[in-house]
Amino acid sequence: MFTIFRGGDDGVWRVTMQAPVSGAALPPVRYLAIEQATDLACSVGPSESSWQLTGVASHVRYVERNEKIQLGARQAGLGRSGATCAALIPIQKSAAWWELTQDERRQIFEDKSHHIAGSLKYLPAIARQLYHCRDLGEPFDFLTWFEYAPTDATLFEDLVGELRRTAEWAYVTREIDFRLAAHR
Amino acid sequence: MFTIFRGGDDGVWRVTMQAPVSGAALPPVRYLAIEQATDLACSVGPSESSWQLTGVASHVRYVERNEKIQLGARQAGLGRSGATCAALIPIQKSAAWWELTQDERRQIFEDKSHHIAGSLKYLPAIARQLYHCRDLGEPFDFLTWFEYAPTDATLFEDLVGELRRTAEWAYVTREIDFRLAAHR
Repeated sequence: MFTIFRGGDDGVWRVTMQAPVSGAALPPVRYLAIEQATDLACSVGPSESSWQLTGVASHVRYVERNEKIQLGARQAGLGRSGATCAALIPIQKSAAWWELTQDERRQIFEDKSHHIAGSLKYLPAIARQLYHCRDLGEPFDFLTWFEYAPTDATLFEDLVGELRRTAEWAYVTREIDFRLAAHR
Repeated sequence: MFTIFRGGDDGVWRVTMQAPVSGAALPPVRYLAIEQATDLACSVGPSESSWQLTGVASHVRYVERNEKIQLGARQAGLGRSGATCAALIPIQKSAAWWELTQDERRQIFEDKSHHIAGSLKYLPAIARQLYHCRDLGEPFDFLTWFEYAPTDATLFEDLVGELRRTAEWAYVTREIDFRLAAHR
């Protein structure tokens, strides 16, 4: 199942901020729609005033069993009624990252970045979902998605700040930061 | 870049055997064509007498640095003039496999199955390429591709037999075994 994020003039999420953090920007949009699709054949492509990004909520790549149990016990699902704030942060990593082997990526990911351990303290307030898209021929490698209540907005800023200081994030070559508000 | 295997009435590879090893078969075809595509939009779908399987030659998932060096030093590329035999073995793994965490899959993959170490002795005679397709919404999770000279056919049978006896292969729920001969 593919998840398609469509930026344009319509959608359940209103874009409150669209900031290119590194690399090329995307055309500014006012709204974001999210759709599920079983295949990508003949999907509507981007226009001048809109774009779409597609990803797959795939199996876990780095998490180990004890971490999966901890995450599973604490994390919240998407679509909570009070979670009217969201963020979409598409990222692309460098060729150097993808040339690394699994053990090397895992070491940067957890041993150096404490990515998973660091994330636990934001649960269950910040719900998150990672979509993979590198193998889909997409412009980004990952679409990271977060949902939270307005009262947790400061906590979310802490999370994003912490992620950007990790060793893993040094490999990010393109990043756009969208903040969104549920508008209907 | 996507690699598309088209089974049908035309192609540079003649199908010499098409055996469903486990799970559902595919319609029998006489030839196999291989194409490269930069996107999947509006690709021609399968018909009654043909089908297509798409995969991505992605980054390595389990191989560690010392193994990557060993493999890189010994493996041969695809398309050698004498390698007129080929095999395409699409496989699907069970939900149980995909519920495993990375460390558990890696343990089965190498510690129990000796998949990488076992492969080294078939290099460089058997050239191989793994295509990932689980995240593409394809019917299979992987398309494994092998090329070898007719004089190495027995060696290839040893390799396939060894793979099927591994702990990893117990998770394979669907498998079709195609053998091919270059015909032009």
